[in-house]
Amino acid sequence: MNIVCLDLEGVLIPEIWIAFAEQTGIEALRRTTRDEPDYDVLMRYRLDILDNEGFKLADIEAVIGTLDPLPGAVDFVEWVTSQTRLVILSDTFRQFAGPLMAKLGYPTLFCHDLVIEENGRIADYRLRLKDHKRKAVEAFKALNFETFAAGDSYNDLSMIDVADARALFCPPERLTTERPELPVARSHGELRQLIERVL
Amino acid sequence: MNIVCLDLEGVLIPEIWIAFAEQTGIEALRRTTRDEPDYDVLMRYRLDILDNEGFKLADIEAVIGTLDPLPGAVDFVEWVTSQTRLVILSDTFRQFAGPLMAKLGYPTLFCHDLVIEENGRIADYRLRLKDHKRKAVEAFKALNFETFAAGDSYNDLSMIDVADARALFCPPERLTTERPELPVARSHGELRQLIERVL
Repeated sequence: MNIVCLDLEGVLIPEIWIAFAEQTGIEALRRTTRDEPDYDVLMRYRLDILDNEGFKLADIEAVIGTLDPLPGAVDFVEWVTSQTRLVILSDTFRQFAGPLMAKLGYPTLFCHDLVIEENGRIADYRLRLKDHKRKAVEAFKALNFETFAAGDSYNDLSMIDVADARALFCPPERLTTERPELPVARSHGELRQLIERVL
Repeated sequence: MNIVCLDLEGVLIPEIWIAFAEQTGIEALRRTTRDEPDYDVLMRYRLDILDNEGFKLADIEAVIGTLDPLPGAVDFVEWVTSQTRLVILSDTFRQFAGPLMAKLGYPTLFCHDLVIEENGRIADYRLRLKDHKRKAVEAFKALNFETFAAGDSYNDLSMIDVADARALFCPPERLTTERPELPVARSHGELRQLIERVL
């Protein structure tokens, strides 16, 4: 019995911080882990900006609510869930992903949490578990599932490396150069073909 | 972050073997673990009957395709998946549950597998993992989820006992007598209230 583990941003939905920066015009939010490799420093920088701009959770949800899943992602999710099990493993936050998960038909999402104050201010973030993508895939393997993992980025490599089958989805060129042995899917159709091989 | 683990038959869909016996008129398929406590003996008895009656997988899928989820179950599943994570933990087989999972909107299902021959004959069954319900709840706890588990029967007790919060759903009276400390939900509305307490 199979289980498919997919990254969320860049695979099924846009990169949330980039899309949020575009929607709101806050250029400073375009900073990523490429500019600031320390994730904790980056997240506190982002949360400070939201705070300074006066964005409370409801405002952010409203902006994110205007975003759409990537083209073809809704049909792709429907296909995967109709064929096998799908668990989305993401380093995003439940509160940010919510509006887009609704548009994807509420597939199962393992991610992290924001700490919200009573007035709606985002006070902090809370990682549910470090390296949770890899640990989830390992847990599914221990539950006797054949695992398939796919993602677009460096933070997906640890789950991809422990899965029984794998793919990179529309990865940056640097990643395919560094890891030439990994199968690459450049569309949801190609990803579907790779999943079909293991079903 | 929470995860809700639910039994399938008796909670979201009818008991498949009983419903199948009713649809086909094969009384012998009404036998349950109450009549034959050895699950392996019971399953081989059931598969022998399907074989003798000439039921191949496609015929069984067609009969099960006429069944419907329990009243209110579709809305209940939609509510749970919109609020938190839902993983259905069932001792049924993927091939039997399939048509009903479609009607429930394809929530994530951990279950077992039938061994199907090329001509569609059901040759055997294969448990993915013994006591998989308990082991899945334990795995989710190790992944730092707060777990809620509910089911209607004895084979749900091991997952219910290890979960952080729990309920019996429409259980037989004997079970509530034996385990008076367990919260009981007698409708999806009551189950929703118990889940809401831990969200």
